[in-house]
Amino acid sequence: MANAVVLLSGGLDSATALAICREAGFVAHALSFRYGQRHLVELDAAARVAEALGVAEHLISEIDLRRFGGSALTAEIAVPKDRDAQAMAEAIPITYVPARNTVFLSFALAWAEVLSANDIFIGVNALDYSGYPDCRPEYIAAFERMANLATAAGAEGRQHLRIHAPLMTLTKAEIIRRGHALGVDYGLTSSCYDPGADGRPCGHCDSCQLRAKGFAEAGLADPLWQRFAESD
Amino acid sequence: MANAVVLLSGGLDSATALAICREAGFVAHALSFRYGQRHLVELDAAARVAEALGVAEHLISEIDLRRFGGSALTAEIAVPKDRDAQAMAEAIPITYVPARNTVFLSFALAWAEVLSANDIFIGVNALDYSGYPDCRPEYIAAFERMANLATAAGAEGRQHLRIHAPLMTLTKAEIIRRGHALGVDYGLTSSCYDPGADGRPCGHCDSCQLRAKGFAEAGLADPLWQRFAESD
Repeated sequence: MANAVVLLSGGLDSATALAICREAGFVAHALSFRYGQRHLVELDAAARVAEALGVAEHLISEIDLRRFGGSALTAEIAVPKDRDAQAMAEAIPITYVPARNTVFLSFALAWAEVLSANDIFIGVNALDYSGYPDCRPEYIAAFERMANLATAAGAEGRQHLRIHAPLMTLTKAEIIRRGHALGVDYGLTSSCYDPGADGRPCGHCDSCQLRAKGFAEAGLADPLWQRFAESD
Repeated sequence: MANAVVLLSGGLDSATALAICREAGFVAHALSFRYGQRHLVELDAAARVAEALGVAEHLISEIDLRRFGGSALTAEIAVPKDRDAQAMAEAIPITYVPARNTVFLSFALAWAEVLSANDIFIGVNALDYSGYPDCRPEYIAAFERMANLATAAGAEGRQHLRIHAPLMTLTKAEIIRRGHALGVDYGLTSSCYDPGADGRPCGHCDSCQLRAKGFAEAGLADPLWQRFAESD
């Protein structure tokens, strides 16, 4: 049984990536970040998902990306609401956090070396929401190449790193169907960019809209809404 | 006047890299890390060097690499002393911190994007101490390639990142001569892996030995010793 490091945000995509990692037979070590995001609801979701899917360890690393500034996810900038698909596709969204995936993958790389793990899983996706540059396949390939030159274990031939991005070319509906088949309880996840204090999704940000469209296309009900309907 | 981000550890090499960055006409933004290192003497040194060489801003980022384990620089493992050059060259030293330069450069990348800076300076060197995999030219080139795919500014053609490693192929004596010519006061820096509480170097670790050899070959006295001789 080989170790793997899985980046786990608490969202729908990373929960599915974790399920795929477990299905492939890896011992999963989940890594989340308190990075100055405005909403810590997603870290609660990450902890629930990690427990439900069975990880060897769930580590939350503290870093402060706010100090560099410049994102609606970490600063008091309004999250855009009710945008259509074309508006979403037109430009890099203001919810982009500078170099976030590079920072996250770098920490995953450090942990992978200590664990003697060759495998890192990340739930990035290039189809549904192509605005993030650090979600593209050419970026992931370049990170993998760099990573294999970065570590002592790699330099000594003891480590051959592979960055797995199993959702890269799937639609949101395909991701949901895949996770559903693997038994992921999406009611535990959190996708909203602007949730209420209790974690209730706003229903209008880009992420909520893409999630709703994905469940509709997959022909499934989103169990997250059921959870909040029950608590009303 | 263009902005640049300079990784500044407080050691001899990064002080020289900062002086080279300033000489090239950049507005320098110095970045240091409190990363769980046992000795905070080097952060005091970084602050002294940043002030002496003139930076627009000196930011100390808090990250905790100790949680991943596995290095004499962050854990209670003894630092090797009085090793000869062959012993130093034989294997990757236990002072290696997993993926450290990758983590540091990732934060520099995030800051560079926010500053609209194309240039990042790092004082790595492949000659004198070749044990660190993330100090090799092929590693730096691979990071630069990845970085140019990672950012929104890069994806939109507004940023063309260059990772400058101006000390890469210099000997320690050449680095010291270069910094001396640029007016670097090496008495402000700290290189020792195992300093006293007042910052006094041990004189026996690999880093102290390489520094002493460098000053001897450069035909210069190390002003650091002078500083401690004066305080005796």
